[in-house]
Amino acid sequence: MMGKDSVQTAVAGVSGYAGLELSRLLLHHPALRGRPPLFLGRDADAVRLTDMHPQLADNNGSSGLMVEPFSWKLLQERGVELLFLATPHEQSRSWAPEALAHGLRVVDLSGAWRLRGHEHRAIYGFHDEDAAAAAGVQSKSVYGLPELHRECIRNAQLVANPGCYATSIILALKPLVAAGWVDLDHGIICDAKSGVSGAGKAPTPTTHFMYAADNLSAYAVFGHRHLGEMMEQLEVKESQIIFTPHLLPIPRGILSTTYVTFREKKKAEEVDACVREFYASSPMVRIFNHLPQIQYSVRTNYCDIGFKLAQDGRRCIVVSCLDNLLKGAAGQAIENMNLMCGWDEAEGLA
Amino acid sequence: MMGKDSVQTAVAGVSGYAGLELSRLLLHHPALRGRPPLFLGRDADAVRLTDMHPQLADNNGSSGLMVEPFSWKLLQERGVELLFLATPHEQSRSWAPEALAHGLRVVDLSGAWRLRGHEHRAIYGFHDEDAAAAAGVQSKSVYGLPELHRECIRNAQLVANPGCYATSIILALKPLVAAGWVDLDHGIICDAKSGVSGAGKAPTPTTHFMYAADNLSAYAVFGHRHLGEMMEQLEVKESQIIFTPHLLPIPRGILSTTYVTFREKKKAEEVDACVREFYASSPMVRIFNHLPQIQYSVRTNYCDIGFKLAQDGRRCIVVSCLDNLLKGAAGQAIENMNLMCGWDEAEGLA
Amino acid sequence: MMGKDSVQTAVAGVSGYAGLELSRLLLHHPALRGRPPLFLGRDADAVRLTDMHPQLADNNGSSGLMVEPFSWKLLQERGVELLFLATPHEQSRSWAPEALAHGLRVVDLSGAWRLRGHEHRAIYGFHDEDAAAAAGVQSKSVYGLPELHRECIRNAQLVANPGCYATSIILALKPLVAAGWVDLDHGIICDAKSGVSGAGKAPTPTTHFMYAADNLSAYAVFGHRHLGEMMEQLEVKESQIIFTPHLLPIPRGILSTTYVTFREKKKAEEVDACVREFYASSPMVRIFNHLPQIQYSVRTNYCDIGFKLAQDGRRCIVVSCLDNLLKGAAGQAIENMNLMCGWDEAEGLA
Amino acid sequence: MMGKDSVQTAVAGVSGYAGLELSRLLLHHPALRGRPPLFLGRDADAVRLTDMHPQLADNNGSSGLMVEPFSWKLLQERGVELLFLATPHEQSRSWAPEALAHGLRVVDLSGAWRLRGHEHRAIYGFHDEDAAAAAGVQSKSVYGLPELHRECIRNAQLVANPGCYATSIILALKPLVAAGWVDLDHGIICDAKSGVSGAGKAPTPTTHFMYAADNLSAYAVFGHRHLGEMMEQLEVKESQIIFTPHLLPIPRGILSTTYVTFREKKKAEEVDACVREFYASSPMVRIFNHLPQIQYSVRTNYCDIGFKLAQDGRRCIVVSCLDNLLKGAAGQAIENMNLMCGWDEAEGLA
Repeated sequence: MMGKDSVQTAVAGVSGYAGLELSRLLLHHPALRGRPPLFLGRDADAVRLTDMHPQLADNNGSSGLMVEPFSWKLLQERGVELLFLATPHEQSRSWAPEALAHGLRVVDLSGAWRLRGHEHRAIYGFHDEDAAAAAGVQSKSVYGLPELHRECIRNAQLVANPGCYATSIILALKPLVAAGWVDLDHGIICDAKSGVSGAGKAPTPTTHFMYAADNLSAYAVFGHRHLGEMMEQLEVKESQIIFTPHLLPIPRGILSTTYVTFREKKKAEEVDACVREFYASSPMVRIFNHLPQIQYSVRTNYCDIGFKLAQDGRRCIVVSCLDNLLKGAAGQAIENMNLMCGWDEAEGLA
Repeated sequence: MMGKDSVQTAVAGVSGYAGLELSRLLLHHPALRGRPPLFLGRDADAVRLTDMHPQLADNNGSSGLMVEPFSWKLLQERGVELLFLATPHEQSRSWAPEALAHGLRVVDLSGAWRLRGHEHRAIYGFHDEDAAAAAGVQSKSVYGLPELHRECIRNAQLVANPGCYATSIILALKPLVAAGWVDLDHGIICDAKSGVSGAGKAPTPTTHFMYAADNLSAYAVFGHRHLGEMMEQLEVKESQIIFTPHLLPIPRGILSTTYVTFREKKKAEEVDACVREFYASSPMVRIFNHLPQIQYSVRTNYCDIGFKLAQDGRRCIVVSCLDNLLKGAAGQAIENMNLMCGWDEAEGLA
Repeated sequence: MMGKDSVQTAVAGVSGYAGLELSRLLLHHPALRGRPPLFLGRDADAVRLTDMHPQLADNNGSSGLMVEPFSWKLLQERGVELLFLATPHEQSRSWAPEALAHGLRVVDLSGAWRLRGHEHRAIYGFHDEDAAAAAGVQSKSVYGLPELHRECIRNAQLVANPGCYATSIILALKPLVAAGWVDLDHGIICDAKSGVSGAGKAPTPTTHFMYAADNLSAYAVFGHRHLGEMMEQLEVKESQIIFTPHLLPIPRGILSTTYVTFREKKKAEEVDACVREFYASSPMVRIFNHLPQIQYSVRTNYCDIGFKLAQDGRRCIVVSCLDNLLKGAAGQAIENMNLMCGWDEAEGLA
Repeated sequence: MMGKDSVQTAVAGVSGYAGLELSRLLLHHPALRGRPPLFLGRDADAVRLTDMHPQLADNNGSSGLMVEPFSWKLLQERGVELLFLATPHEQSRSWAPEALAHGLRVVDLSGAWRLRGHEHRAIYGFHDEDAAAAAGVQSKSVYGLPELHRECIRNAQLVANPGCYATSIILALKPLVAAGWVDLDHGIICDAKSGVSGAGKAPTPTTHFMYAADNLSAYAVFGHRHLGEMMEQLEVKESQIIFTPHLLPIPRGILSTTYVTFREKKKAEEVDACVREFYASSPMVRIFNHLPQIQYSVRTNYCDIGFKLAQDGRRCIVVSCLDNLLKGAAGQAIENMNLMCGWDEAEGLA
């Protein structure tokens, strides 16, 4: 598929927030002009895309697009080559192998295929019908963080799109950890805050406006599923990292405040150079000379990074921000598509 | 019960927002010191009140209070004299007559007994087992707006606590309508805006943070249930009033912007005097010389009123604000209790 | 300038919210690739654009762009042909004539040149040095609402970009008023609600988070400056229209709820057809079969319109929504540029 | 003054948020019935209290209260015994000694007198006219955190009311630090988040709704003024504690997430017992079995505390929440008044 002019895509799970953003991005992607994705939903009957998401209405023809019931037959008939799964974990765990068997390439936005180690995957409690086959699929999946795995993604059949929190924290810390500067045994602390869209579209007590508004709460302390991704991608042990997510009273955006201790004293210029060099060829990471805020990156596909070093040159706070629905989900999925198709990594994400 | 020192109360429907506010008010009511209400819920087992509502925890003994399963036997055993129903409409429609039969006095916060005319009640679609009995109960119920029906409330067995929107609009308009100044045939327009708590605690698509935040939407246009109350209490016909509710991205508070046309030219001083005189003995209405804002009255039991008269002296805009959970629900229920017990109307509401 | 491939633009007043949005749109406009606008500010020294607006940082070269001190000489040196004034009213009143004298075409986002009648302009209290010259300029200016004045805008030297409230209300009502259906003497009521960005970037008591958040307030009742635009463009008298703006606790977006009475009974299909036909060739207006919400149009350049007709067929509520910074300001300015340059009206606004 | 029935109070600095809350609390304080505080402001002329704060209007006589220009003579004439300073740091630095010289007792809500060590005070940059005298006053001031200094406060002439962030963090950590459990050399991390009212009432770029709403930002990293209070009251060195404040998009409330490492393994029951025992006689601290949220404590005077211990028994996260205007400012000032007057610590704070 490398270097193709275009590609036929499909999106399963259009109704959720990531599905909505993904649909919007695909409809406006330069390489997909005239080839709208096949939209797939859970309903038994086809519904108009703009009835499901009035925000997607435009006066250039989107009104005719339909969200159709999922079927492998339909995917085949429409010549789909690349399937985005914006589906629940269990669904993705079951569908991704089947899609591969049908010769499709897959970008999965769920947590189904992100984790290498079975001790981490256990937290999802998957019930694979054929465990050996699942392990085989797992071993072929690529963790879809372009800044770390750009080359593997290009040729991947199955890309596991990273979690939103994980993206913000891995990108914040990887340059310093990879440089061997961080005293891992001292422990890394990741205090992260996310907008409500991260909790999904299902109406629940904690997504109720009255719960989230004018509030802040920590949750899943010492037990959030994204911790496994951070450990694997940063190559740290559970005893070396703490991750505390908080629910912010805003629709979208994540800010992660991460605390590391260096083995040796560093100067701010050294830290800055280390981070900038690491991301020199990464178009979707912006390095700031001050601490970024959530507003900078919301509704963009950037991950923004800044840091502040204590006078002792050893204690360092790295702040990273991103839009959980874009760089943390749908936008990063587009990046992965771009790489898989041989296009510019940032195509359609300006 | 007039002039009693105290009274044994019970609250059915503690789990909702109005139930929470009512519980808080009753726990701090001066006349009820040492006599906490009996808290009644839907669960089969008793649960600690502060497990249901951690906000109610205090260090003075609330921790021992329980929410117990509803039963008439329990009400009797505990010597309950006054029952607050913070229950769904259908539940109140069924329980209120039964409570009266048990000799209890009732303040019902639902819409079950607010409407005199059956053509208005139809919108609720009640299925009364014994329609004649229900009509009898209906005829004895009092519309619990103290500013209009103070005397009847004192001796009522069943008080139908008004709707939140209805309270704000009736209080805004009644003085001018009662004075005969308003040209009813020209039509009254009530453009009202309410915080999300008005939509209840059940997680639904429209109470999801992502739906309500950063948004505004009109709903139930030409068909909101509170319209009947306005028509009956203001004595206007459907052709004479338009009521448009909007969902505000705030937790609580209602602001109603109402537009009337006077039959004859009036001066601002005349309008001001008319409104102030009407509410001279109403402790829970505040008249402002400028237009009130939602923030003034939120977390108080006041209904705030202000107006602005056009230069022509005939077009008048009346703005009223209140907290939908207090003056629009639980606070007004306390007012009604106060009147029923011979206490000061504003007792426990400062 | 008709049909030109590209054009050299400049933006005066880059620091404000409209200036920021305008800058973003111009930087991404397809016809302006490689020709970034000249950015002009009030500071004596040039500052980096991305220091002023970190959100505009991208990894494709925006980092080199500067905001430079305004001077006519600079405009000339850089070959500017089209000048956007995102400046205060008084500034625009003074600069627009001077720009015309320098042979520039101008899109002015302020209220300086919107009003035909001097009795309306009086509210701005302009102190024109040469009143006759100002009147001459005024007479040549075009009200920049493409849906009404598309043809005149194409050849205009000076386009007065409409007010945000005015845009939402004129677009909501013009089809029905123009059809002669509305009983003007009965009076039109426009109850409008706007996000805080409409109040500008200057920190004031009313733009303080603590004032605006969790609040709603009406302001400038019977006296808002945008009323004049509505009267002139709808051709109604002051006695025939009431406009009540409210400050919403959201960053951006306007929802206007407008109430009209028809001279004769109409069917919903007739109203729908009337509105759709009026906007048949207007790409930036979307007609909905239900009432639109603020979220649909925020961060788009659309004005969304829906209506609800009472059973009597005579009382009609029209709701319109738009983003006050886009269709209500910067986006509409881009539309005007597109028309002035012979490009597609919606170019760069998808 | 111990055990007095009542006392004449005065509030300087009524216009700010803390001044407003303090005024409200004093007007409703049981021991001050019939003795409203003397309200003092910066304006040259007296203004009606309810014109300055319409929210304080009630129908029981508050309408007659005035905010008068500050003068020592006026304080004397009105027989003021206890003066609350809700004034800027510099103002309090100058007025508190003068008040003491006039024989008044003082509760100062600013940062003027909180810090023992001059190296910490340096950050405020005070310019004391008579440094020796200031040092003398400083040495007599008591840090007004009742949970730590209850006895000293009772007899204090000058009470320095703690900072809001400092209160939340000191109360979260003191029990564990005092028990000698915390490995201070490993470092304590305090990641705190505050609502906008903490930034004061002055309209500034960062208190603008458009800056704060839908946003989160860290600020004053490694340099916030409250750090000194934490160090002094917890008796830790700068190298042993990191404090990172963030600006939350909510009106009020602080949540602090603090991370400590124990010297030795502990069980959750031990931690729970340690914290509960420490606060056994502190009425304004609530200990939860789960992590508290901002909503629990907002508009109460409680500081809520909960914790979560890692499986290793050594890494512990303590979360504390409070209302920055109540327990973090005005409410705590009332506690201090209560202690100074021999009243119950929680009087008037239910």
